Formats: sequence, structure tokens, C-alpha cells
Amino acid sequence: MRHTASACAEYYMARALELARRGLYTTHPNPRVGCVLVKNGRVIAEGWHERAGEAHAEVQALMRAGKKAKGATAYVTLEPCSHQGRTPPCADALIAAGIKSVVIGMQDPNPEVAGRGIAKLQAAGIQVQVGVLQAQAEALNPGFCRRMREQMPWVRCKMAMSLDGRTGMRSGESQWITGPAARAQVQGLRAQSSAIVTGVDTVIYDDCALTVRAPHLLLDAQETALACERQPLRVILDSNLRTPLWAQIFKHPGDIWIMTTCDNAQKRADLEALGAQVHVFKANAMGRLPLAQVLKVLAQSGCNEILLETGATLAGSFIQAGLVDALVVFMAPTLLGQGARPLFALTGIEKMADQRPLVIDNIRAVGHDWRIDAHFATPSQTATHE
Amino acid sequence: MRHTASACAEYYMARALELARRGLYTTHPNPRVGCVLVKNGRVIAEGWHERAGEAHAEVQALMRAGKKAKGATAYVTLEPCSHQGRTPPCADALIAAGIKSVVIGMQDPNPEVAGRGIAKLQAAGIQVQVGVLQAQAEALNPGFCRRMREQMPWVRCKMAMSLDGRTGMRSGESQWITGPAARAQVQGLRAQSSAIVTGVDTVIYDDCALTVRAPHLLLDAQETALACERQPLRVILDSNLRTPLWAQIFKHPGDIWIMTTCDNAQKRADLEALGAQVHVFKANAMGRLPLAQVLKVLAQSGCNEILLETGATLAGSFIQAGLVDALVVFMAPTLLGQGARPLFALTGIEKMADQRPLVIDNIRAVGHDWRIDAHFATPSQTATHE
Repeated sequence: MRHTASACAEYYMARALELARRGLYTTHPNPRVGCVLVKNGRVIAEGWHERAGEAHAEVQALMRAGKKAKGATAYVTLEPCSHQGRTPPCADALIAAGIKSVVIGMQDPNPEVAGRGIAKLQAAGIQVQVGVLQAQAEALNPGFCRRMREQMPWVRCKMAMSLDGRTGMRSGESQWITGPAARAQVQGLRAQSSAIVTGVDTVIYDDCALTVRAPHLLLDAQETALACERQPLRVILDSNLRTPLWAQIFKHPGDIWIMTTCDNAQKRADLEALGAQVHVFKANAMGRLPLAQVLKVLAQSGCNEILLETGATLAGSFIQAGLVDALVVFMAPTLLGQGARPLFALTGIEKMADQRPLVIDNIRAVGHDWRIDAHFATPSQTATHE
Repeated sequence: MRHTASACAEYYMARALELARRGLYTTHPNPRVGCVLVKNGRVIAEGWHERAGEAHAEVQALMRAGKKAKGATAYVTLEPCSHQGRTPPCADALIAAGIKSVVIGMQDPNPEVAGRGIAKLQAAGIQVQVGVLQAQAEALNPGFCRRMREQMPWVRCKMAMSLDGRTGMRSGESQWITGPAARAQVQGLRAQSSAIVTGVDTVIYDDCALTVRAPHLLLDAQETALACERQPLRVILDSNLRTPLWAQIFKHPGDIWIMTTCDNAQKRADLEALGAQVHVFKANAMGRLPLAQVLKVLAQSGCNEILLETGATLAGSFIQAGLVDALVVFMAPTLLGQGARPLFALTGIEKMADQRPLVIDNIRAVGHDWRIDAHFATPSQTATHE
């Protein structure tokens, strides 16, 4: 079998992307990165970034290759870093190991550093190719890329609905529309997120823990261990500090932030005594929590991907503010009728011309339910950020 | 390559089913039937039923085979008829041609005749096997089977909705939620139906023709010609005879029946002058059109498959009466918000336990839209028929 050089590059980059995905649940706040070292047409070592503070993908692979790395080609999903972080710069390590050429999936998305790693490699006489399977490399780290470029996180809104687009009874009863396989996928979505954002009504009425729970993940033991080793930050949007002190959410491990516009010192102290951090925001012109500001604060604290798990009203507000990047809707094979709760509260749609077009990326069966992955057809309305 | 006898039988039956499908748009009120004649491991002739009054599948194949039919095995999707209808009995023709054995997809669903064709063949010394790919043979003629067994038609309810389960604006505006590919499939669903049932509000507000229109069918020329040669009966459910005399529906070819509980002689005469037949029913206990009775009348006139094309209220009434067999929902990649019209008006669902479970058979992309095929998980509530 003969391959063209470009098919070869894509082949090894696909492997590097596969390795990078092993860090799906654990690299936060760092990006997922994979690396493959190839010499004389053979893979001599592989590496991936697993946890912040631990060796980067390139260094993992170089350590495994040892002296054999000299003269090899490195395939790495993200531009090697050129600065001293918690670990030394990877570009220096590649140069020191005598790597001959480096193939890169995508440049560092941070505009202030993008290209510096590449320049450092080139200055050392290393041949560099950039942009192999670039779209896939971007898709691996949507939150990290967004945060580096725009100082905002990437928001995925998850909903569970009936075939007729209803999320639960008018009474609030909604457990469970979807089956165990769909709920296991939600656990996976939580595990890969830096933070889970919800509204105080969801905390009050569903009394949910919003944690990643091992038994509910239908993964193998090794993946389950990785998915459960870090609990994502749980964020409650609670303008009036109505979060009940008895809520289940306080009884489970992991950090809790409460975003509010209320400065009731007593309630704040009570919530802080339960371990929560309370962040007070200035209300926007409509007297509500400034959602874009809330997301900005989360980005500043290192949040890449956000999972929005909430009801029709708050989810609708995020959508109308142009702050939702992707929808994951689990559709159950059932009808709840027109009296049941709607999927999204969206105001101002009076004519067909006002509709909010989506692009459906994928629909597939998950147990007896179906998972719909979609994103908005129109770009994020960043101009309307509060 | 070697096959077992049963794999062989399924192979030729699959071909016979494929041939039968060529009559999808044209056999009404007859069933779709295909036939393959096999001798010495080779197909010697094929046939399918195309139109009522024309030769049945077996006779078509026998005519093509001529004398070579002697000693052959006939694979036929439906039990050969044993009675003189508009054409002579197929069982007699198979016997006269010297057929050695007959493999049958399914028995005649009419309990009064089922098995008589088989008995006739066996009495003539022909070996008979029944039930090869039986489920597929049933699925080819759901309406004919239902009508023969229960004197009722088989009802498919077609809807077009947004991802959030909405069918249009509160104002009634709904054209077009879905794109040309989905609308072409609706034309195909119409063409394969004996009748299209709608409500008077749909006639008033959408002013639709409800005909099969050639340019909208994305089929090849031959299939388009078949699909358009017969206009399905159009049935308007109109309790109070509100159908407007100016409605588009009267300006297009094909029969129109208006089902009403109103005996306004003048309006009735006006509608009949436009070519419509008016059927007056006794209102049910709720003062409404007795939907099961309406369907029974359609079955009595030879309707096999019914396409229900209407709004949330009437569709919901059919569902609640247990009269809908299958749902075909075209889901467009868009959001219309909670102010828009619901998919189905279903009353009495107050708890999750009241939900109406479905089985989703299939979801697939149709242009930019997605087609959801589903049926109800609970059997038709025939006990509640009015």
C-alpha cells in the first residue's frame, strides 16, 4: 500500500486526535492534546495530556521514545507551547530531542501567543506543517479555543423532551422523560464540562445534585475513573438568593458558585457556610442577571466548556442573548400534549420570518431515546451581549 | 455459493416484495402483490399487480413464462386468490400452468377467505409453504390487511414541526416549516394513500389542494407518472358545513367527500354542485363527528391507507380515540418558541404516568429536515371507538 504524504500526515494526526480524546474528562482548564512520534514510517511513541500540572502530550511521547526520538517527525494536535507554564515549553523539548519535523493540527488559539511555538521550532531548523485535520483539532477543544480567542466559554445546552417538544408536566414533574442510556450520556456531557450552569428553579423543583455519578456512566472502569475524578464546578443562577439551604446540591462533593444580583448578607453567609461561593453582579437594564457577564467570570476562572442544564425560561434567555453554541436534545418516544412545559421560552417570534434556524448536525438512537445535536444557523449575536 | 433452502426462499420472496412495491401508488383498492417464478435455480419470469381490474401478479408472471412455467416454483407475496373477481382465480391459473410448488409471504388477511387459495393449490398436489418474510409482506399492505380483518382503514398521521414541536404561528401562518425534499415525501405519502383526511379549518386557513402534484415529487419520470395517475379521495371533516365554496380544493381534479353532522340542505346542495359528496353522520355523545364511523365508511368504500393531514386539534382527537396507527413527523431544524402552535392537542395528560408512549421506528435526514416514523406503543384503543 502506498500513501501520499498528505494522507500519511492525516493518518498520524487522526491517531494523535484519538489520543488527545483520552483527556476529554481530565485536562480542564487545559486543552486536550495528543502527540505521535513517527520515524521511518513507524510509530515510535505516543503521548497525551492527562491533567493540568502534568506533562504535556509532546513531553509524554518524548519520554517514551528516549534517544530514538532523534530524527523523528512529531504529529501534535495543537501548536507546541513556547512559554514556561507549570511545565517547561514543549517547543524546547522537541528541539532538544532532535526532532526533524513537526506536523501541527492547529495553531494556539490565543492570539497573543499563536505562532510563537512554530517560530521557535522553525528557528531551530525544524520543518513545520500546520493545519492538518484542523477542523477536528478545533472541535476537540471548542471551549478552550473560545476562551483563548474571546475570553468567553463555549456553551452547550442540554434538554430532554418528548417527541412533541415538551420537557415535563405543568406541575413541574419531569422525572424521567428519557431512559438510562440518555441519562448516562448526560453524565458524560457533565464530566467533559468545566462547569454546569443551572437556574435556582431547577435546584428547588428537581433538587438535583448536578454531579458526575459513576454508576450512571455506561463506560468501562478506566473511563469511569477518569470521568469521576473531577467534579465540574456547579453554578446556580439565582438573582434573589432563593437557593434553599436544604438543597441536595450542597450534600455532594464539588464546588458551588451562586451568581446573584442580591446582596442579602445573612442569606449569603448561610450559603457560604454550606461551602458555596456567592458572586454578586449588577443587574442589567431589565433587572436580571447579566448572563454574558456571568459567562465572562466563568471564562476568567478557566472554564472552557459549559453545560447548561436548566428549564425552558433560563435556557430561552441564554438562546435569545446569543450565548448558546450547541444544543444537545434527548428526544423520548412519547407525547406529553399541549398542556405540558415547552422546550424553550422564546419571546418575540410572531411570524415565520422570526424563527430561529438551526443546523442539525446529527440524530442518533440512544437506548429508546434519540439524541439530537444541533447548533444555531446564525452566528452568536455577540453584539447583544449584556 | 451455497444457500440453505430457507435462505433461497427469502431471497426470491425479497425480490417478489420488491416487485410488489411497484404497485405502491396504483393498486388501490387492491393490495400490492409481487410474484417470481423460479426453475432450476433461475428466475424465469416476474410479475406484479399494477391496477385493479388488470391481471394479478401471478397471472402476469405466468403469461411471461408461457410453457416454461411447468415445473417451476412460484414465490408470491400474498396467498393466491381462489375466487372469481374482476379476473379469474390465480390459484386455478397456477394449477393449470403446472406449477410444482408455491411459496407464500402471507395468507389472505380476509378471515372469510384466508387459506382457501392454499387449500385449492394443495388439493391439486402442489407443495405450499406459507409465511416467508411474512412481516414484510404485512407491512406492504397495512391498510388492505386492516380493512380485510377489521373493516377499518389504516391511518397514518403526517405532521410538520420545528425542533421544539411547533407546527406554525399562533396566527395560523405555517408555510413552510419544512423544505422541498420533505414536501416531496408528503406527495409520495398522498399518492400511496386511498384517501387524504383533513379538517375544515385546514381547508379554510391553508386553502390547500391536497392533490398529488407531479412537479413536487422528486421521483423519476416513470414513478411520477404512476404516482399521479390516480388522485386519492379527499375527505373534509366539517361538522357544521363551513367549507367555503371558494376553496382551492374544488378547483383540482379528484373526488371530494365532506363528512358532516349538519343537514343544511342549501349548503349541501351548493357543495354538491361543486362536485363534492356530502355524507351526514349522527353526532356522537360529545356533539362531534363520530371519527371511527367516518373511518368505517371509508373502509366500506375500499379505502386501505388513510393519510391524515390536519392541525393539532383534529389530529389530537384521532390519537385520543386510538385511531392513528402511524406518525410521520417531518422535523425542521428551527425553533418557533412556546407561543407557537403545538403538535397535538391531547387532553387529560396531567401526570407523567398519563403520557402517550410511542415507538420510534426510524429517523432519517430528508434534505435539511428529518423524518420521524413512529407508532403508538399501546395497541389501538378499539374499545373506545365511537
